[in-house]
Amino acid sequence: MTKVPGPCAGELGVGPRRWRTEGRAIMREIGIGLLGFGTVGAGVVDGLQKNAGVIADRLGVRPVLRRIADLDLETDRGVAVDRELLTSDAASVIADPGVDVVVELIGGTGVAKELVTAALEAGKPVVTANKALLAEHGEEIFGLALRKNTEIRFGASVGGGIPVIRALREGLVGNRIESIYGILNGTCNYILTRMENEGLSFDAALAEAQAAGYAEADPALDIDGFDTAHKAVILASLAHGFSVPMDSVHVEGIRGLSELDIRYALDFGYRIKLLAVIANRGGSGNDNGDASSGGIEVRVHPALVPLDEMLASVSGVFNAVMLSGDLTGDTLYYGRGAGKGPTASTVIGDIADLARTFQADCKLGFLPAGAAGPGRGVRDMHEVETRYYLRLSLLDKPGVLAQITTILGREGVSLASVLQKEGRSDDHVPVVAVTHRALERSIDAALADIDKLDIVAGKTVRLRIEGEKERVCGCVGV
Amino acid sequence: MTKVPGPCAGELGVGPRRWRTEGRAIMREIGIGLLGFGTVGAGVVDGLQKNAGVIADRLGVRPVLRRIADLDLETDRGVAVDRELLTSDAASVIADPGVDVVVELIGGTGVAKELVTAALEAGKPVVTANKALLAEHGEEIFGLALRKNTEIRFGASVGGGIPVIRALREGLVGNRIESIYGILNGTCNYILTRMENEGLSFDAALAEAQAAGYAEADPALDIDGFDTAHKAVILASLAHGFSVPMDSVHVEGIRGLSELDIRYALDFGYRIKLLAVIANRGGSGNDNGDASSGGIEVRVHPALVPLDEMLASVSGVFNAVMLSGDLTGDTLYYGRGAGKGPTASTVIGDIADLARTFQADCKLGFLPAGAAGPGRGVRDMHEVETRYYLRLSLLDKPGVLAQITTILGREGVSLASVLQKEGRSDDHVPVVAVTHRALERSIDAALADIDKLDIVAGKTVRLRIEGEKERVCGCVGV
Repeated sequence: MTKVPGPCAGELGVGPRRWRTEGRAIMREIGIGLLGFGTVGAGVVDGLQKNAGVIADRLGVRPVLRRIADLDLETDRGVAVDRELLTSDAASVIADPGVDVVVELIGGTGVAKELVTAALEAGKPVVTANKALLAEHGEEIFGLALRKNTEIRFGASVGGGIPVIRALREGLVGNRIESIYGILNGTCNYILTRMENEGLSFDAALAEAQAAGYAEADPALDIDGFDTAHKAVILASLAHGFSVPMDSVHVEGIRGLSELDIRYALDFGYRIKLLAVIANRGGSGNDNGDASSGGIEVRVHPALVPLDEMLASVSGVFNAVMLSGDLTGDTLYYGRGAGKGPTASTVIGDIADLARTFQADCKLGFLPAGAAGPGRGVRDMHEVETRYYLRLSLLDKPGVLAQITTILGREGVSLASVLQKEGRSDDHVPVVAVTHRALERSIDAALADIDKLDIVAGKTVRLRIEGEKERVCGCVGV
Repeated sequence: MTKVPGPCAGELGVGPRRWRTEGRAIMREIGIGLLGFGTVGAGVVDGLQKNAGVIADRLGVRPVLRRIADLDLETDRGVAVDRELLTSDAASVIADPGVDVVVELIGGTGVAKELVTAALEAGKPVVTANKALLAEHGEEIFGLALRKNTEIRFGASVGGGIPVIRALREGLVGNRIESIYGILNGTCNYILTRMENEGLSFDAALAEAQAAGYAEADPALDIDGFDTAHKAVILASLAHGFSVPMDSVHVEGIRGLSELDIRYALDFGYRIKLLAVIANRGGSGNDNGDASSGGIEVRVHPALVPLDEMLASVSGVFNAVMLSGDLTGDTLYYGRGAGKGPTASTVIGDIADLARTFQADCKLGFLPAGAAGPGRGVRDMHEVETRYYLRLSLLDKPGVLAQITTILGREGVSLASVLQKEGRSDDHVPVVAVTHRALERSIDAALADIDKLDIVAGKTVRLRIEGEKERVCGCVGV
């Protein structure tokens, strides 16, 4: 790292009209080594080039792109880079003494893991947007960063262009995190928005999303909820200070969601969103989320969100996260959750943090993940308590509802409201019910029995209701 | 500052199930000196006490309250503090060698300014929530912090419990900021929400807000827009790297806003909010906001916001800020903009940043405010271009609208739509019009002439329309 007189140096005498440069030390450079020159990589290069002056001026440090590694050195990325910066040898980028910070934008848990590990082993701070790597191997990666007294920053791994990890780790660091509700996958939110606005089926909306470039040819990672689950694991681990295993997370995607349920949910005043839910609810025990009291809820599934909640207003490819802390209450963060510019924005924000510590010649080390306590764990899904939306196909004859409510009642589930919907088929009618709060295990048990009844045609649809404040239901109880 | 073995020390061997403590150095303490033991001060004390373990565990540093200064040492603040911490001598708190960080929560520009200055002169970092101080004396205060190579952090000065300053300065540091739209005053937003939901007059809603404790007995600072303007000055200065003078900001409050306009705006698909608008629009020149091209727009006034924009969903005492950057696009931050817990949350977040640098034995110094360039300035209000909502009281006879449109047309203002509303009085009818984009100076000139016409009864109401994407108006043009 070399000290060079930057263009700001000449501005030092500008005086008190400025909030910034007076007394500024001579500007340094921080060398960036980029691993992965795909869409986001090109976005970072573009952002650093386009806003070089602004960034240097704000930071007092000049981020300089020193090397770029990618296997494909030919494709035009739409940004001008000196060919001499390009290499297919990623290890040489990490080893380059001019590279102060390694930016990993390869993705996945294969070569990306090897390279991130190598960079941290070399004591070089890492910036990454790799949610899969952190969700699957966070313990190992973060442990290594701690041992090497270096940093790994991963702001773009959740929420793309929304600085929500910064808000959680830094802004709300004084809070116990009570709940997190996240719309974290733009593909799913786009599909749900199109299904609602245009009355499309899931398949039609998915095809449209693929045609528009909002969904992959193989959309499984998005629509089956695993991308959202990766992000939920990162948020939950940061909020609650222990490593949440991916396999402890209950994951349901939106594949095959019926447009009927989107419509009926609206009738009840809800909009369906694919949500990550992370909740530290006392429930049956204390509020520390100890495993003994059931632990922290970490789950991903479609959910009904009240229309008057901010989260319900998040449409199209946008993402949003509602973080609720014991001091600050509800806070929400909204923006583009993916894409070239937004992701690059957050990657550059992370680079900037590291640049400031370089300028000050200090190492902050890895910021701890959160408050830990012994015995923490993820609450078993059966122990989760929430409200439910049920759509049953019932024979249209007297007494059928009584049979349903009897079974529900036996499991301790009571209904807040029931509506028989139009659109009956020859012999079955759709009946939609909303429950009061109930345990997942109780609903499971009740539905297992309900779906065996002769009066029930087909599997009952069960969706969870989330994010609503305690309120009196204005519907007629049953 | 003393090194003490903290409770984390015993956890160092917990191993890889944890994201955090492995390799952690011995925990230090950071001494806090609190100036001002009012509502927010008590909130900070409460938060630090209640979440002491969580905070220390996350930071690896233990914030310890060393001294509290207030003139009133008797009133019960609802938190237990050792009487020996209390003093009425603020200077002794700053001078105390055990005080590493000075937290100023007195407010205002009198004694608070003296004490903040004294703390910075002593080289001690300062955390403050004092928007008036920074809006009025930011240049001087920040210049001093730079000269003394210490920090002043002021996250709670805008948006209360929302970490929006952190998002702007750090998360979006790689972006040129294109626009900022802020709902920054909970009192005004509460009043507007109640006027809309209950059809209350401004006076009735203000009285209700006062009764509910959401408005001061003297509400001028809030309802006349100056509190919002203080916050706008801070945001604008940070975003654009020059010190925005308070007297360069166009400020209109919500005093006397008619419930009629709230209702008519809804008919057009808009909700009225008191907005801070900070925009860097090319307009007639380049996009650098040079004074030569008209500079940066910084203004505070009631505005019509499209109902489908996120900002329109912000109701009651909540605040929100939409930050748009050239890389990340639109991002929004939402939460409680004031109050004990929310403000304390952000103050503690700032303390935590300083604590981490203490733990690492480093001084980051004052983070620069933004990208500066010579010749920057605030755009003259006459040069602002936006769309307008106009409510005219016109005689109900043929040809009156032609007279209006002739005058508007002469000034280059064209109408997107016009509606004659019911609720006519004996001889006048309310006519509401929405314009295409026009210069403020053109509207001023047109209204000056329009309001002189015999066919016009009373002053025409003029409100600005903000925050809408370019869209085709579905209304019938005139």
